[in-house]
Amino acid sequence: MPDNQAAVLSRLADCLGPGGLLTDPDQIAPYCRDWRSLFHGTALAVMRPADATALSEALRICAAAGIRIDIVPQGGNTGLCGGATPSGSGVNIVVSFARMNTIGEVDATDGTMIVDAGVTLAAAQDAAAAAGMVLPLSIAAEGSAQIGGVLATNAGGSKALRYGSARELVAGIEAICVDGTPLNLLRSLRKDNTGYALRQLLVGSEGTLALITRARLKLRPALTAREIALCALPDDASVLRLFRIFQQHAGDVLEAFEYISGVAMDLALTEVEGLNFPFSERAPCYVLLELASRQKDLRDTLEAALEEALETETVVDAVLAENMTQAEALWRLREEQSEAQRLAGASIKHDISVPVPAVPTLLTQATAACAAIMPDVRIAPFGHVGDGNIHFNLVQPAEMEGATFLRDGKALTDAIHRVVHDLDGSFSAEHGVGQLKTDMMETWRGGAELALMRRIKEAFDPAGRLNPGKVLPPA
Amino acid sequence: MPDNQAAVLSRLADCLGPGGLLTDPDQIAPYCRDWRSLFHGTALAVMRPADATALSEALRICAAAGIRIDIVPQGGNTGLCGGATPSGSGVNIVVSFARMNTIGEVDATDGTMIVDAGVTLAAAQDAAAAAGMVLPLSIAAEGSAQIGGVLATNAGGSKALRYGSARELVAGIEAICVDGTPLNLLRSLRKDNTGYALRQLLVGSEGTLALITRARLKLRPALTAREIALCALPDDASVLRLFRIFQQHAGDVLEAFEYISGVAMDLALTEVEGLNFPFSERAPCYVLLELASRQKDLRDTLEAALEEALETETVVDAVLAENMTQAEALWRLREEQSEAQRLAGASIKHDISVPVPAVPTLLTQATAACAAIMPDVRIAPFGHVGDGNIHFNLVQPAEMEGATFLRDGKALTDAIHRVVHDLDGSFSAEHGVGQLKTDMMETWRGGAELALMRRIKEAFDPAGRLNPGKVLPPA
Repeated sequence: MPDNQAAVLSRLADCLGPGGLLTDPDQIAPYCRDWRSLFHGTALAVMRPADATALSEALRICAAAGIRIDIVPQGGNTGLCGGATPSGSGVNIVVSFARMNTIGEVDATDGTMIVDAGVTLAAAQDAAAAAGMVLPLSIAAEGSAQIGGVLATNAGGSKALRYGSARELVAGIEAICVDGTPLNLLRSLRKDNTGYALRQLLVGSEGTLALITRARLKLRPALTAREIALCALPDDASVLRLFRIFQQHAGDVLEAFEYISGVAMDLALTEVEGLNFPFSERAPCYVLLELASRQKDLRDTLEAALEEALETETVVDAVLAENMTQAEALWRLREEQSEAQRLAGASIKHDISVPVPAVPTLLTQATAACAAIMPDVRIAPFGHVGDGNIHFNLVQPAEMEGATFLRDGKALTDAIHRVVHDLDGSFSAEHGVGQLKTDMMETWRGGAELALMRRIKEAFDPAGRLNPGKVLPPA
Repeated sequence: MPDNQAAVLSRLADCLGPGGLLTDPDQIAPYCRDWRSLFHGTALAVMRPADATALSEALRICAAAGIRIDIVPQGGNTGLCGGATPSGSGVNIVVSFARMNTIGEVDATDGTMIVDAGVTLAAAQDAAAAAGMVLPLSIAAEGSAQIGGVLATNAGGSKALRYGSARELVAGIEAICVDGTPLNLLRSLRKDNTGYALRQLLVGSEGTLALITRARLKLRPALTAREIALCALPDDASVLRLFRIFQQHAGDVLEAFEYISGVAMDLALTEVEGLNFPFSERAPCYVLLELASRQKDLRDTLEAALEEALETETVVDAVLAENMTQAEALWRLREEQSEAQRLAGASIKHDISVPVPAVPTLLTQATAACAAIMPDVRIAPFGHVGDGNIHFNLVQPAEMEGATFLRDGKALTDAIHRVVHDLDGSFSAEHGVGQLKTDMMETWRGGAELALMRRIKEAFDPAGRLNPGKVLPPA
């Protein structure tokens, strides 16, 4: 290590105190790869500031170092696109928020709660629940994912249908610019039209504009009535018709509307032990739906909607959860999808979205395109169909080597993305761009849009030292 | 007019076609003042493009003119802060969107509708209603206010409590940069994490970053059950307790929670003819609330909440609307507040917000501060207390000249703003900054926040030619 780098690290160690700076290669290694091990980089050190003041001072030291030091913020390191993994440039310092994990009191009247960036989403949910409130944001990685990363990536999940993604659930943000300047946008104002929407801009910027250190999260009053049903459908086109029926009967209380393709369901029942399939026959596809409110007659609402769906042959069968155990059993059929696909071998995932009315077209066209390329590939889509967000995942043919499948997978991915692009959709509905998908930005978001994003990046980070190589492709 | 200006206007007239460019001083005059006549400016011309393509071309002509031409977008010209009024610089051209007023079809499955910038909010509401949907945004000026201006100012209103302000109701935006470059962000994706939140940034930027030409608005399914009640309360502190009771009983169906001070109610009953006061005695303050859902037992929910409020002496009396006529009569007591204050003489308005839990403190402290300065001023606050947004309005003492009152009003305004600032509130909850309040930005949003806003402005509009003098104070 050059002397000047060593000098900076020494100053950072002093600034951050005991346990505040990791430089031991073994200790640093876990921060230098993403959790899928798709990306590997290097870091001069990992900063673990105890609070925002220490982080601000450390960033000032880096900015004034006289040598280039790039800053890579990292939360729970559960991202799927390498957005928190350092590059191999040799000048990265990772910032870990693990020690910034204070949960403030729930203010029930304000309907908010302040948490540090390093608090896990699950811990924040638990704190809200302990106060009789709900933080209505739920993702698979919530046990490890930290609030800072959840906001930086504008996390979605199955409840976004009703409550919106992370951006809609943030009432305030505290952040630090790459030069160490603090930015306090924590004030709790439900209406405030005094200038540009900096808070909304920081959410979803994947740590490329500023480092989020705290957030004021919006909570909802807990709901007392909840109904869960699994429907078996005759075809993909019926999914939209069922969605319309539920919008009309229960549009204001619809909490989840999740699609499971027949192939995906079959895979789960084959691969995952202990699942209970509630119908006597398999169906072409399924919808798992959940209603929640305070109304006593919520079951009536559900039954009226299902009656119309059965009468119009929009669904061929439906089962209602009669208790929490049954509800959990139904949800497991959806939640075990990723695990089922993992057990079935190599898979290629596509986190795509299209306008909701285009979902059946997407399913039909993308399935046909994939089957034409590789007839025995297992096409197992599932996902948040009420948001137009399908995880259009492909599982290797049973008789093929996983590595062969992955090697030939690019043609499949390209074919799916062509369908999505033609439907004016998105190549990343929930997971962000990170470093995995920057090469798609020019084609999908190019022209004036990408040009403005580059200028915004420059406005926040003129030297390009904050999480370089993420979101925006090289100019 | 210099020759080069005349040459540019000639090219613009050709580009915009018949009726597309106004240069007659009499025709231009209405565009050069705001509707309260607080601000007056000048314009070389008013452009009335027939569509976005014509506007884009016209903006290219202005950008390439070789002389400075500033662009001032103007919607229905109902803004309260002069944000759409040209300056007196002599180089302004106003853009009117009146001819861009196409309403697209409602897509019920997608839950959206595309409208041109020049469509009035009321017309957009009507189109949604005709399709059995609701555009849940309502403001006093909705008959004249145009969607472009509604979005540019991130309009709020009384339903923001449940549905959010304009920013939350926009699924897509089409805009044009000041140099004529089109920016298509209309795609209808409920989840899309591919780069920075340009759409959210444009909403609320008051026409200083780009010109909004079309929007895709989010609609909601129409609700079938509605309950309206007016409550009489013993004191301001009880307002918060009542809010908590309703959050607990009906947090998911609470559509409006509006405060009316005793003074404001008395003024309305004195000044406005035909109002029906439903209680036998006047009270210190009132709350008008509305619940809406599809549940058949919504009345039970309302009655249970009111029962708790009466038992705990949080309210002293309450009246429920038994039909639409009664509902409208109750709402008139709230909606006629501005008219009552106008009839009572000169008034000074403050569109402020604070965290919801701080509302009683705001009312107490701001009232005391004003009374100390001018003991007989009529302090008549009302507003969206569920959003922490109070229109803290002052009406002239009955025996004073209006002009005298307005002349001495600055001390009152300063006193109110000091209270709001200490409570970490906002000097503009709903109405924006415009040119009326730019001098407050440095004190309230200064430092890193304002610096970033300036750099964002520069990213979109390097020459500062788009609506100059609005939002940001002179550097």
